[in-house]
Amino acid sequence: MPPIPVQQAEAVGEYDMFVIGGGSGGLGTARRAASYGAKVGLAEATHRLGGTCVNVGCVPKKVMWYTSEEASALRHAAAYGFGNAEENNKIAASFNWPMLKKKRDAYIERLNGIYDRNLAKDKVDYHEGYASFIDKNTLNIKSLNGENYTVKAKKIVIAVGGKPHIPSDEEVPGASLGIDSDGFFELEEQPKRVAVAGAGYIAVELAGIFNGLGSETHLLIRKNAVLRTFDPMLSDVLLPWMEHGGMKIHKDTGITKVEKIDGGLRVHQKNGPALEVDTLLWAIGRVPNADGLGLDKVGVATDAAGNVVANEWQETNVEGIYALGDIGGKALLTPVAIAAGRRLSNRLFGGPQYKDDKLDYENIPSVVFTHPTIGSVGLSEPDARKKFGDSIKVYTTRFRDMSGAMLDEDQKQPTAYKVICAGPEERVVGLHMIGVGSDEILQGFAVAIKCGATRKDFQATVAIHPTSAEEVVTIF
Amino acid sequence: MPPIPVQQAEAVGEYDMFVIGGGSGGLGTARRAASYGAKVGLAEATHRLGGTCVNVGCVPKKVMWYTSEEASALRHAAAYGFGNAEENNKIAASFNWPMLKKKRDAYIERLNGIYDRNLAKDKVDYHEGYASFIDKNTLNIKSLNGENYTVKAKKIVIAVGGKPHIPSDEEVPGASLGIDSDGFFELEEQPKRVAVAGAGYIAVELAGIFNGLGSETHLLIRKNAVLRTFDPMLSDVLLPWMEHGGMKIHKDTGITKVEKIDGGLRVHQKNGPALEVDTLLWAIGRVPNADGLGLDKVGVATDAAGNVVANEWQETNVEGIYALGDIGGKALLTPVAIAAGRRLSNRLFGGPQYKDDKLDYENIPSVVFTHPTIGSVGLSEPDARKKFGDSIKVYTTRFRDMSGAMLDEDQKQPTAYKVICAGPEERVVGLHMIGVGSDEILQGFAVAIKCGATRKDFQATVAIHPTSAEEVVTIF
Repeated sequence: MPPIPVQQAEAVGEYDMFVIGGGSGGLGTARRAASYGAKVGLAEATHRLGGTCVNVGCVPKKVMWYTSEEASALRHAAAYGFGNAEENNKIAASFNWPMLKKKRDAYIERLNGIYDRNLAKDKVDYHEGYASFIDKNTLNIKSLNGENYTVKAKKIVIAVGGKPHIPSDEEVPGASLGIDSDGFFELEEQPKRVAVAGAGYIAVELAGIFNGLGSETHLLIRKNAVLRTFDPMLSDVLLPWMEHGGMKIHKDTGITKVEKIDGGLRVHQKNGPALEVDTLLWAIGRVPNADGLGLDKVGVATDAAGNVVANEWQETNVEGIYALGDIGGKALLTPVAIAAGRRLSNRLFGGPQYKDDKLDYENIPSVVFTHPTIGSVGLSEPDARKKFGDSIKVYTTRFRDMSGAMLDEDQKQPTAYKVICAGPEERVVGLHMIGVGSDEILQGFAVAIKCGATRKDFQATVAIHPTSAEEVVTIF
Repeated sequence: MPPIPVQQAEAVGEYDMFVIGGGSGGLGTARRAASYGAKVGLAEATHRLGGTCVNVGCVPKKVMWYTSEEASALRHAAAYGFGNAEENNKIAASFNWPMLKKKRDAYIERLNGIYDRNLAKDKVDYHEGYASFIDKNTLNIKSLNGENYTVKAKKIVIAVGGKPHIPSDEEVPGASLGIDSDGFFELEEQPKRVAVAGAGYIAVELAGIFNGLGSETHLLIRKNAVLRTFDPMLSDVLLPWMEHGGMKIHKDTGITKVEKIDGGLRVHQKNGPALEVDTLLWAIGRVPNADGLGLDKVGVATDAAGNVVANEWQETNVEGIYALGDIGGKALLTPVAIAAGRRLSNRLFGGPQYKDDKLDYENIPSVVFTHPTIGSVGLSEPDARKKFGDSIKVYTTRFRDMSGAMLDEDQKQPTAYKVICAGPEERVVGLHMIGVGSDEILQGFAVAIKCGATRKDFQATVAIHPTSAEEVVTIF
């Protein structure tokens, strides 16, 4: 449906709930509330629904990951008896970025349309504009065509998400010559040479895609590991494999200056030679999107980083104002925002059976779309040692999965799994995986761990042969 | 290690345990028993260890499945922006079967060598020969070089496995002109036209491989569905997709006669025209491998189909004689044989903490390497209705997974999941999946189901986005 026109919006009366932000969390919250008959409005400040995940996050990222995997498949084809390596590698190197970018954009637009229709179907009023607080029950909406109007609501949900952080030009001269992950999805041409700054999951994912698609790729990290909030095994396996695949890893470094030069950028680093690249991509973290919301007008508390503080019930310090999703600064994951939002709406509008409904933030599984993929749920080994002491049991296995059986030695991807158990029952408190298929393998194990599964439960389950996943139950 | 020479074998004295059969089950049993210090011997009647799984089953089959997936990847490359469809399809069609067959054989030989070394490492005496009962503690070994000698053992384990069944030429004139799944792995050249008879998992796997690699493939099934012991949804999705992929499915039919003709075979069928093919492959079932074992000499009971009857402790009716793996005729799966064998050896030799150790045959997960793959654990919907009545709750979803996002419409593979819940708690009693990655997704869910997971546990687990697996926890 088209967003509701300004005149109608003004006549709409008071909402039961108004959601600021049309990303995954906001949409999940609004639609669930409306499903109970609540009168719900939602404002989105860009011209498209879906937020980070759909437009500049998980979805187009995964399309690019598939594309990079396809390039691998081409490079593997000769080993499987198809064509010859030289010609296949030429095809892999001939990647048509502009064509794929157009297809990817069209795919996202179709998703945007589905989101529009879902909102309409669920009778949520869609306001295309920028919402800011006037008081705790009143928002100003500045519509995308510049008109201002107000809406009233009994409950207001802040679900405005976050955005990538780039250093200022004062901090790093020339920093703004670089792009961020939003800019990655705007690239019309494939950069031949690219520097990615950062060691988090966005950095390794995007660097992995560039490298897989044949760009000369530099990854600049501050220390000597990536994914430092994850179990260290994952970086230990991933980093050498990325280097093996031709990525240039620059450790213990940082960018000190960026200059525009003929045909590109010169990126000066703290430790090592200056790099000449076509594109610099900053992936050094994300920040909350709270500017201009007028939180100060209603006294909603934020933390030092600007994240809106909400408790386990998604309540801010101001009654009737809630916050969920990336704006809260923890577990920045689409399904977390959706689950938190749906549970909030269940509790507020779903009747007494939902009076205690809230999201449990323990054992949230997450995956990283590197090559190969990474999956992780529960405590890392260092965190498990902190919590349970050295009595934890740690089981690991490393192998090369069967998809490599026919490949040349240097094409065989590594796999490493770690299961961490605690207590006399050996309850599984952490599972960490890197290897082909880890992204899909993890979900079921996350359910088992949510059920309190022990080593014994893992061992009692018959393995599925021949798979990679079976190694998780035979690891002991 | 080399198998022990006949002279030494005769001087070996009495074994604590002797295992007949060097497949997965026998090896698992023998090595586990030896790990407790038992004196263990093992006889294998072929020249190589590993049994069906390693030599003519799971392992080479999965190599061929990967190969067929690689052909798909080539056919998908243009849609992802690599090369052009016509040329890529030419490469996919240029498959070099003889080259891959050599590589696959070499890979299996390496595995055989690993098995040899593992047996030696674990100090299991390896007898290369055919064992048959003389009495309940004595076996005759006919070594591969034709000499006979006897071995004595306190306990004897029958783990001789099964073999493919082909109709006799009396039943179906010319039947022996066809090959079976063992013969599939001996094919030196790719048949251009092939008929596969059968509707079980071996039939659909091998037909899928042939079809994926470009052979004109006919699948002849007796009724109108495949995988008839599985949940019907799987056949409902797989069959049309196989047809869509160019496979010719002949339903409600059977083979009445096979004739050798110039350049191939003419396969006459009950229902439909005769087919001219290069190869006919029978995949109509497997039978126990018990001929010549001399079971009658010791009175070991078999069922009507010739399977050795063993109870849940793997005990036959004769004290001290055990049976496990495919020879028992149920749950013909490598990990089942391994788990049953290890648990038996735990119980017999592992000390009092293992006195109740046995394999639980409930909720054994299994997968089928079709394109896309299939995974299944627990009860099918018809079986669940039989057991729990119509109060069961059945949740299903059908979608096209994201790996198809950039593909042409006719390339997008189907996905379908079904979760079956029973009782007031909605315990999950069945999970059935077809779709990309189902082979790897299933294992973790099988652990959860083993733990008694309910719908609530599935729902309490945060989804992993964007994956296919997440749809299992958001299906409700």
